Amino acid sequence: MQRLPFTKMHGLGNSYIYINAIETDMTGVDLAELAQQISNVNTGIGSDGLILIAPSEIADVKMIMYNKDGSEGKTCGNGLRCVAKYSYENQLVTSKTFAIETKAGLVDAEVSFIEDQVDVVTINMGEPLLNRSQIPMLGKEQEKIVNEPFQIGDQLLQLTAVSMGNPHAIFFVEDINAAPLYELGPIITNDSRFPEGVNVEFVEIVNEREMNFRVWERGSGVTQACGTGACAATVAAILNGYAPKNGAVTVHLDGGDLEIRLDQHNQVWMTGAAEVTATGTYQLNR
Amino acid sequence: MQRLPFTKMHGLGNSYIYINAIETDMTGVDLAELAQQISNVNTGIGSDGLILIAPSEIADVKMIMYNKDGSEGKTCGNGLRCVAKYSYENQLVTSKTFAIETKAGLVDAEVSFIEDQVDVVTINMGEPLLNRSQIPMLGKEQEKIVNEPFQIGDQLLQLTAVSMGNPHAIFFVEDINAAPLYELGPIITNDSRFPEGVNVEFVEIVNEREMNFRVWERGSGVTQACGTGACAATVAAILNGYAPKNGAVTVHLDGGDLEIRLDQHNQVWMTGAAEVTATGTYQLNR
Repeated sequence: MQRLPFTKMHGLGNSYIYINAIETDMTGVDLAELAQQISNVNTGIGSDGLILIAPSEIADVKMIMYNKDGSEGKTCGNGLRCVAKYSYENQLVTSKTFAIETKAGLVDAEVSFIEDQVDVVTINMGEPLLNRSQIPMLGKEQEKIVNEPFQIGDQLLQLTAVSMGNPHAIFFVEDINAAPLYELGPIITNDSRFPEGVNVEFVEIVNEREMNFRVWERGSGVTQACGTGACAATVAAILNGYAPKNGAVTVHLDGGDLEIRLDQHNQVWMTGAAEVTATGTYQLNR
Repeated sequence: MQRLPFTKMHGLGNSYIYINAIETDMTGVDLAELAQQISNVNTGIGSDGLILIAPSEIADVKMIMYNKDGSEGKTCGNGLRCVAKYSYENQLVTSKTFAIETKAGLVDAEVSFIEDQVDVVTINMGEPLLNRSQIPMLGKEQEKIVNEPFQIGDQLLQLTAVSMGNPHAIFFVEDINAAPLYELGPIITNDSRFPEGVNVEFVEIVNEREMNFRVWERGSGVTQACGTGACAATVAAILNGYAPKNGAVTVHLDGGDLEIRLDQHNQVWMTGAAEVTATGTYQLNR
């Protein structure tokens, strides 16, 4: 029986089992199988999946990610913050700014401190895509979707759509607690106008620096937090004139807060917490 | 930030976080709060609850159990096997037979070995109660409920009822895969003839030493395993002449196998696995 060192971490309740594959030899381990076993809360540890922090040829570290169903993931904003915190605190990197390789490309990360502990992590989430064909949403090419009438059943909503690599449909509401999340989320996410489906977000503007946010994630339903969704919502707020073009916006999600900032080069930066819940060894080959 | 040593274990997929409260000082810790935090798969570790292994004045060790909702539990067959394995492997007891104090009374435990590792654990689950008022089920006092006609909607079933401290309604079927578990489980569990509700079990006799078992647990629905249910089903099989009065019966549950034996003193013994999945430290006071 082999014992595998692990760290369990979460960002806004999105939890993974992290394995330091720079120090632990994972040769010959079936990672898809391990992800399913270790993520099972009854017979394993319990998580949304497995993330390996591995050596990279082109960045400081490499994130290798498997979902709890054994499928390989490309990237994950909450996971990236945890990878960054882990890498810094375990001396896998020496600078407080560094690059993480993912299946979706290279990502810049920066850690901030309270005393000697990593407090929050900032991740470059890339450039928002706004053209209809980039979302993708059916309709005229090249056109942005900003405060556009969107009929669903007998209700007329106003839609703003943003892609952060994945599609988001944002609807601004007066009161987040009255938003029709459970009613319309499952309908809009599968609406045929979005050929690849869509993440559905309801957003209440508190003031120009603060918003309340709830999400129906494509393929998952209501979740505690969606990092790309918070980025898309901030971009949508800027497009609609609810938030200024520069400076950070605080997005209140069910799982906690994220701070989102659009920089001069049209890059979206996300800042938030990353927490260690447990460290130990997992019993392999049971 | 305080670090709390833990072991995560499961019996047939019923998992708890175990804390050695003989070595770790838990004074001042709000156990109900800790159980909720540590059992949360998103922001904690993830489990069905928290079990402390504590000093006992009247037995070898004491099991203190909290469910994931923070309520205090009395006892749990799958948990007792894990407590026994942990106590022996961590030298909290020195004999392979010993007593565990629970809120439901004293329990005898025995560990068995393969080489130097605990293989399976046997627990004395106590005496089955058979009188109608003991189940409890409405109707004539003093009468046993064995193969009794039981009308539910337009279906006529044959009921055998057994209490193992909690009530069980057992229905023998030809084919466990065709049993109306999801159809009738939620109806029978709330049937007004059982004033305290009832656990509903469908059982297929494979031969006189082997049975297939599925359960709708009172308050939980379909679960992977129910230790008292497997005991009740074995007693019901003996009452109906499907199993002999002595010798062990193997019960195949969704989560794995249990071996059940009724001894000469009318005590039911349950033998099954207990598995360690992870050991480590949990971050308190986050």
